[in-house]
Amino acid sequence: MAAHHGYEQVPVPPALLEELQRLVPPGTVLLDEEKRMRYGQDETEDLRFPPQVVVRPGTTAEVAAVVRFCSRHAIPVTPIGARTGLSGGALCVHGGVGLALDRMNAIVDIDERNLQVTVEPGVITQVLQETVAAKGFYYPPDPGSRGSCTIGGNLAENAGGPRAVKYGVTRDFVLNLQVVLPNGEVIWTGANTLKNATGYDLTRLIVGSEGTLGIITKAVLRLVPLPKETRLMLVPFRDAQKACEAVAAVFRAGITPSALEFMERDAIDWTLRFVEGVTVAIAPDTAAHLLIEVDGNHGDVLMRDCETILGVMERFDCQEVLFAESSAEKDALWMLRRRVGEAVKSNSVYKEEDTVVPRFALPDLLAKVKEVGARYGFKSVCYGHAGDGKLHVNIIKGDLPDNVWMEELPKAIREIFEFTVSMGGTLSGEHGIGLVQRPYMDIAFNKMQLEVMRGIKRVFDPQGIMNPGKVLP
Amino acid sequence: MAAHHGYEQVPVPPALLEELQRLVPPGTVLLDEEKRMRYGQDETEDLRFPPQVVVRPGTTAEVAAVVRFCSRHAIPVTPIGARTGLSGGALCVHGGVGLALDRMNAIVDIDERNLQVTVEPGVITQVLQETVAAKGFYYPPDPGSRGSCTIGGNLAENAGGPRAVKYGVTRDFVLNLQVVLPNGEVIWTGANTLKNATGYDLTRLIVGSEGTLGIITKAVLRLVPLPKETRLMLVPFRDAQKACEAVAAVFRAGITPSALEFMERDAIDWTLRFVEGVTVAIAPDTAAHLLIEVDGNHGDVLMRDCETILGVMERFDCQEVLFAESSAEKDALWMLRRRVGEAVKSNSVYKEEDTVVPRFALPDLLAKVKEVGARYGFKSVCYGHAGDGKLHVNIIKGDLPDNVWMEELPKAIREIFEFTVSMGGTLSGEHGIGLVQRPYMDIAFNKMQLEVMRGIKRVFDPQGIMNPGKVLP
Repeated sequence: MAAHHGYEQVPVPPALLEELQRLVPPGTVLLDEEKRMRYGQDETEDLRFPPQVVVRPGTTAEVAAVVRFCSRHAIPVTPIGARTGLSGGALCVHGGVGLALDRMNAIVDIDERNLQVTVEPGVITQVLQETVAAKGFYYPPDPGSRGSCTIGGNLAENAGGPRAVKYGVTRDFVLNLQVVLPNGEVIWTGANTLKNATGYDLTRLIVGSEGTLGIITKAVLRLVPLPKETRLMLVPFRDAQKACEAVAAVFRAGITPSALEFMERDAIDWTLRFVEGVTVAIAPDTAAHLLIEVDGNHGDVLMRDCETILGVMERFDCQEVLFAESSAEKDALWMLRRRVGEAVKSNSVYKEEDTVVPRFALPDLLAKVKEVGARYGFKSVCYGHAGDGKLHVNIIKGDLPDNVWMEELPKAIREIFEFTVSMGGTLSGEHGIGLVQRPYMDIAFNKMQLEVMRGIKRVFDPQGIMNPGKVLP
Repeated sequence: MAAHHGYEQVPVPPALLEELQRLVPPGTVLLDEEKRMRYGQDETEDLRFPPQVVVRPGTTAEVAAVVRFCSRHAIPVTPIGARTGLSGGALCVHGGVGLALDRMNAIVDIDERNLQVTVEPGVITQVLQETVAAKGFYYPPDPGSRGSCTIGGNLAENAGGPRAVKYGVTRDFVLNLQVVLPNGEVIWTGANTLKNATGYDLTRLIVGSEGTLGIITKAVLRLVPLPKETRLMLVPFRDAQKACEAVAAVFRAGITPSALEFMERDAIDWTLRFVEGVTVAIAPDTAAHLLIEVDGNHGDVLMRDCETILGVMERFDCQEVLFAESSAEKDALWMLRRRVGEAVKSNSVYKEEDTVVPRFALPDLLAKVKEVGARYGFKSVCYGHAGDGKLHVNIIKGDLPDNVWMEELPKAIREIFEFTVSMGGTLSGEHGIGLVQRPYMDIAFNKMQLEVMRGIKRVFDPQGIMNPGKVLP
């Protein structure tokens, strides 16, 4: 797909490019087409918006110097992480400087005495998890892309993932952030403490702001003790609605699982075809699965929890439950779940929505998605973190004509979002608004709410140079 | 103590008072001296700042009408909750309208299917806890004053309490807030969902903003399943430092207690004298106690956790541990802990600081407080939520001359705060900045950080009418 799509491009003149090159070490300013294109896309559909120049600073001071330069010359600057985003938040829609944080990937300090870790934004989430696990600690937030996404992006989008249902989202694990503001000044947002009632909560204002208020250059994160054991079960249902209904009932039974995932039949079928070496027997009449994990320090307690959960599942007419017997089996089931997105997308052009509702509204949301799909003529594959009320809706283009896809689909998406909001939910649970959900912000927020958000944006970024064209319509 | 203290008073002329009276039902505008004085104080030292007029609206629409009126006439408006605050956040330092939310005390909806509750701000925290407990749910944040403080104030100050160490603070239980902005417009800040990555996090910006950005008129809060059992133990130590050191070691052993409280000898002695009907035998050489609670659904697991904790305590040279054998004994121990503040304060004029550090720094903070006290000649009684690194420092005036108390003490407090911040901590963990910690904000934040906070304040409240004189220096 061609770049730009009609967004105004702000050119950086050659003299300024020279100035920029003097701010960072040799080899960290990239101008060639292939590299710019590589940094100009993420995992959002097939969109490409390359920056005019990619800069890869290695220190907070270098980030600050580059941002100060951009501020002085009114050049757009877009922070770029691992480019696993699903809402286009890191795409350089106005060209300018793409500020890639991939070189800043140090785990600066693991404070074992306080169960805290200080990291740079470019640390891969799974690397952080495995490093702290080796010391007996746990960092729970892990998006599907945990093997390639980075903490900076997780913070920017307030990423969640399957364990949020028990442990909370990225926001809940952040104590303090070092941020380069759009004027190039460096601040810390808070303190390294579990409790804090000192001034406005700048920390959580930055989390989820998708790189529009500043660039995170360090994060102090909270850890918890690593649970010693997990139990994992895959529960098939003949009726997808009943599977959704069973979700809320688990919590009502007093159990908080460490993961509670929903997958439509197609999601698991497509993934089984897509992934090598995993076999799961699925009955012909299975319509959906729940993948349920519990964790803790005592195996006997987990078995009791599993029995309680099984009792709940049976009330909702589940089929034969598969318990993972070994860690290899657990890994296989988790791999299936984690790769659903990729598998579905390998089949067709698609659009992914990231709807979230109070969890009891999940069956209604699923029914609504199918009803809208039937009316507009599209197929959808739905899956997600059902324990949180999160439903990833993958809309498949398949044989849909281009004009329907381009002109009618936005209306269908609007209907789904309107329903979501009417149920007390919202547009995005964990992917962010970025570029692609921006046209729908008026569904979630009225004029006054958006005015407050725009006012906050102006406080941080009066020039509008920091990740322009994102989040706020 | 006399009112005003040199703060400029903004008078409301008689004609406007008449206009104000037409906005709310008869009897809800209070002008008489005694009532104004009653609404003009909280639990902060002996400060009194009465509003010129108290208004007690009963609905969001009435709050909005009163705020719109104040905005139109540039009259200061200060939200007033249960007046249990410890930083003077609800004191009407500039006179004007004191907007009391005590009539808005309905539990609007308990959504058992989604484990959510919608409340008005005037609901007493303990009332909420007991109401949801009757249905098998748990709302963990409970400040010491939970029997009299209200959810609105808890939200405004981001209150914590003993259970935060396991469950998190008020901020972590808020899903969505209805807020009357300083211009009188009513907004919701988010959605009723566990995950949310849709626009800036206005919800958590309002939490902890101490009524300076708007008035919370409804809150949607998250609940968790009520744990079925608790175990509680009181652990005495000969050495207060060792008690502090034992705190971090509990977490390192893989246990997250549901409460982990520290009390100096004096704290418990004074409270035993102050409270009727509770007897605890304390050895003559006991210097400090830890009060440790674990909770969960399985009694056998809790006993195993207690054994692990005991093993840790013994490594730090604890004395004989007292296990609460019955719920009456548990209640008695908790009552002792909850009433320490009152007991200490009944003895003398005092100042209470709300310092917080990473938990491993607690022994150093305690040593520093004692060292500063020795140098400036004051006695202090320290206690607090040690699991969170929170130390309430009660500075006792005792026989200290007035001039030392007035002129020298602020320097001592400054030294303690500077030390706190140098350890990665901050000024307030859960009481807020309000009025009395405002002169120390420069210790926690530099010019740029404060400028960002002031900018945010201006976005919400360009006229500066909403709780003026608080938080920001």
